[in-house]
Amino acid sequence: MTENKNILVIGLGSMGYGIAKSLMRSGYKVYGQDKNIDQQQKFIQDGGLEGEVLYDQLEAVIIVVLNEQQTREIIFGEYGIANKLQNDTLIMVCTTVSPDFAKEMDNKCVEKGLLYLDAPISGGSKKSLEGKLSYMISGSQKAQQKAKPLLVATSEKVFEFGTSVGAGSAMKSVNQMLAGIHISAMAEAITFGITQGIEPKKFLEVISECAGTSWMLENRAPHIIDDDYAPKSSINIWPKDLGIVLDIAKKSNFSAPLTATAMQQFVAAAGSGLGHEDDAAVAKIYARNAGIKLTKN
Amino acid sequence: MTENKNILVIGLGSMGYGIAKSLMRSGYKVYGQDKNIDQQQKFIQDGGLEGEVLYDQLEAVIIVVLNEQQTREIIFGEYGIANKLQNDTLIMVCTTVSPDFAKEMDNKCVEKGLLYLDAPISGGSKKSLEGKLSYMISGSQKAQQKAKPLLVATSEKVFEFGTSVGAGSAMKSVNQMLAGIHISAMAEAITFGITQGIEPKKFLEVISECAGTSWMLENRAPHIIDDDYAPKSSINIWPKDLGIVLDIAKKSNFSAPLTATAMQQFVAAAGSGLGHEDDAAVAKIYARNAGIKLTKN
Repeated sequence: MTENKNILVIGLGSMGYGIAKSLMRSGYKVYGQDKNIDQQQKFIQDGGLEGEVLYDQLEAVIIVVLNEQQTREIIFGEYGIANKLQNDTLIMVCTTVSPDFAKEMDNKCVEKGLLYLDAPISGGSKKSLEGKLSYMISGSQKAQQKAKPLLVATSEKVFEFGTSVGAGSAMKSVNQMLAGIHISAMAEAITFGITQGIEPKKFLEVISECAGTSWMLENRAPHIIDDDYAPKSSINIWPKDLGIVLDIAKKSNFSAPLTATAMQQFVAAAGSGLGHEDDAAVAKIYARNAGIKLTKN
Repeated sequence: MTENKNILVIGLGSMGYGIAKSLMRSGYKVYGQDKNIDQQQKFIQDGGLEGEVLYDQLEAVIIVVLNEQQTREIIFGEYGIANKLQNDTLIMVCTTVSPDFAKEMDNKCVEKGLLYLDAPISGGSKKSLEGKLSYMISGSQKAQQKAKPLLVATSEKVFEFGTSVGAGSAMKSVNQMLAGIHISAMAEAITFGITQGIEPKKFLEVISECAGTSWMLENRAPHIIDDDYAPKSSINIWPKDLGIVLDIAKKSNFSAPLTATAMQQFVAAAGSGLGHEDDAAVAKIYARNAGIKLTKN
């Protein structure tokens, strides 16, 4: 059923790469684009389509890039896809964006005769590769209908937020608020533990069995224990994502003190030159401020 | 083996009551004391020992009260137990206290010929009743030895932190740091969600499947959804417990911005007259500051 349908995935970072691979496993032919040419070449060697993209034969374009600016450029920029696609092609945006941005993109896509799906994701790179992401989607019936097999191929859970574009991104912003706070809380607690003589390994062993645990803690604390800051999700994600959350919150007159505090820790990490390290590296800010080391070495 | 051994549990709140009940299930004879006489009567009707406590026949005293002050009064106050107990009786303190306080109590108990176990707990009232708590223990070999059957009868997990008293309480303070931040983060996010059109029920359904989840979120968000603030764990716990955490942190020159921020939310909740409500009521502070309601009613 899905055989021979062509999909273009733009953004082959840890999330986009997993989505593209999962689609191929389900029989789709997938083009991959990334501003990092090495990553794009790797994808072709991994089974991706080679050569120039045949835009007029695409079923859908899935966009999984860093931010709103890149997303806008990809769709409506000078070399944007909007003018290259056939009517009723689906544009599915998984980038974390504000609800207002999603609405704006949807309006413009509708004007061009394109289908837009607000489709932010959660789950991390491992689940992405396994085709087990969670989606929070909103968009027209027609867009949802067209996206359905793509969602099935790449996800474990699809949470539907109706036909009003932006609702999916609103839910995503709530999730990112929590995720950002929890990463910083993990960093605060694991470092505090070191000052009290509790080794990071013991910290994880105990806390993961206690009321203080979180998904992010169990996912990120091992990076600190292993002293491994190769970015699975980088520090730079957070000033951006928590910035979106705080912008939305401010517009709604919502005071978000924990979010604002976590934001400052990530900004300090980025400002300290850790922007491209894994986001668990926010613990280095806590450690530096306490004059301690995260590892014995 | 454990039959006919007499234990005194002081503090029959949600945690202490569960510990006392679990001990009875394992064949111990248990006295229960609480400054709330109704609670003490309920415990006797539930199978607890009646009449005057025979202190010289006690195997152990387990203390599960609110704070350091109460703990000190119980052990060394004018009517304290320290002068009533036989040599080598075990005093097991489950109250959340600072490591320094635990060390002080241990020193004084050793002077009196008593065994002291630093034994803070985690798990909540439900696990306490089921005999499935987690303990973080530190204390002399002799104290650990004597406590062993009591721990077995009341817990699922015992994390051992060696013979230096205070290490268990240090671990507990790390857990409380996370637990307090996570409750406040849940409150911040569920209320933010309402401003974005996401109902609390949908919030829990989605977030519990996403990277933003935490143990506390899954445990406390239902209280908000059910509009039920009968205290399973009260707001008043947190200014106290996070106060202990921040005191320890300050002594170690450890800057804990998220903990300090969460603390302020609980202080504001206590100051607003919510001290005796369930700690999920911290969401009411967020809602009030945003001019919204947590429920549709």
